[in-house]
Amino acid sequence: METLKIVKIGGQLIDNDVALNSFLDDFAQLDTPKILVHGGGKSATKLAQQMNIGVQMINGRRITNAATLDIITMMYAGKINTKIVAKLQAKNTNAIGFSGADGNSIISVKRPVKTIDYGFVGDIKKVNIQHLQILINHGITPVFCAITHDKKGQLLNTNADAVASELAIAFTENYTTELYYCFEKNGVLEDITNDDSVIETIDAENYQTLLENKIIADGMLPKLSNCFHAIDHQVEKVHIGKSTMLLHKNTKHTTIQK
Amino acid sequence: METLKIVKIGGQLIDNDVALNSFLDDFAQLDTPKILVHGGGKSATKLAQQMNIGVQMINGRRITNAATLDIITMMYAGKINTKIVAKLQAKNTNAIGFSGADGNSIISVKRPVKTIDYGFVGDIKKVNIQHLQILINHGITPVFCAITHDKKGQLLNTNADAVASELAIAFTENYTTELYYCFEKNGVLEDITNDDSVIETIDAENYQTLLENKIIADGMLPKLSNCFHAIDHQVEKVHIGKSTMLLHKNTKHTTIQK
Repeated sequence: METLKIVKIGGQLIDNDVALNSFLDDFAQLDTPKILVHGGGKSATKLAQQMNIGVQMINGRRITNAATLDIITMMYAGKINTKIVAKLQAKNTNAIGFSGADGNSIISVKRPVKTIDYGFVGDIKKVNIQHLQILINHGITPVFCAITHDKKGQLLNTNADAVASELAIAFTENYTTELYYCFEKNGVLEDITNDDSVIETIDAENYQTLLENKIIADGMLPKLSNCFHAIDHQVEKVHIGKSTMLLHKNTKHTTIQK
Repeated sequence: METLKIVKIGGQLIDNDVALNSFLDDFAQLDTPKILVHGGGKSATKLAQQMNIGVQMINGRRITNAATLDIITMMYAGKINTKIVAKLQAKNTNAIGFSGADGNSIISVKRPVKTIDYGFVGDIKKVNIQHLQILINHGITPVFCAITHDKKGQLLNTNADAVASELAIAFTENYTTELYYCFEKNGVLEDITNDDSVIETIDAENYQTLLENKIIADGMLPKLSNCFHAIDHQVEKVHIGKSTMLLHKNTKHTTIQK
């Protein structure tokens, strides 16, 4: 089967125009069918501050009330997504921007309130690849922001790592899918203070040891959980590291596999 | 040839949730292939005020500096477009949101500076319908905001009436196209103070008389100019009036034709 690459970018890449442009140069050169998924970096927090709207975080997660959802929709689906699409067009990559509402491509359910009410936050329930596949067949590169919908008219703020992994899983029907999580570090590190201490391969076996020894902790826990969720659902490989790993095969990074 | 309806909404419909919802109910029921084009109403001006960014207007046109372009992109391509798509999905209309950068569908040139520098404002140069046609063939309804691009990475603020008319013209290749400009009045009025004084038909002949008698003036001048530009380029009919004209054939409104 042909390979489809799903590439997720976030954080410092989104916040830095020069870094973003350099990443998009690399991404445009990928010669397989591909999908880009982007987070929002610190931009939504900055916009909220400019508009004097408070940001409430619990356990590192943003609480999404109606005003915050508007800000996220303006920033992620508006400014960031549209700019990325225009930049890719200039690099001769024919892109179309998507939220999960577009083409009814990603349906979520509003996260039920247990102890914490996260507000308008969605957990992905279903991915419809039909129209995406038609567009990919015609040379289009979909660019997803991390906003989904409930098919009842409500937009929902959704984790960008999950958007990427669920897209990768859904496309295993038609492709060998590979997932790339690009961020500012070289990969999953043995020693968080040493960017050279990259763990080059993680599989189900050493994953348990890394968890027990608390080498995988904090923000890496949900990221790795997403990775293994993808691997357990027929995604071929997941790569974590700097975006240079996309084009340069010998870039040290972490590969997660069966 | 099959009919394609291009419907443009703006102003008070965009600014009023109840009116917008009622319009979308009607729009969803149109049983021909269709495209929605939306302006931004007063929302961008409000957001600029909230962010303490000045709005400069000359002859009723917004001067689009970089900060204003960001605001327009956030509001039109972000909040308004994504919300409309989610609402249409809830009404079982499978929509995909577009700016002109998406699928390289509308290419503009930045308006040259003569006496006034309008900033990042684009005049439409080319419409590419290829991917739109593929999506329409698969039951998708494109929803356009009035932002285009120059194919060199720059987004451009573009007149929504022009986006609608240029789309209608481009699709005459494949369809009989009809253009609907929905706004808060019943149509083009003989007497601007009397909403019942609708001029029901305007053709090339009485257009000249209406111009000479200054019955068509102010904001109606560019609107009618757009309409005749469309009619002169094979668009079958242009309708101007309240959005109820979409479904209810006996709604009094203005029809512009050869």
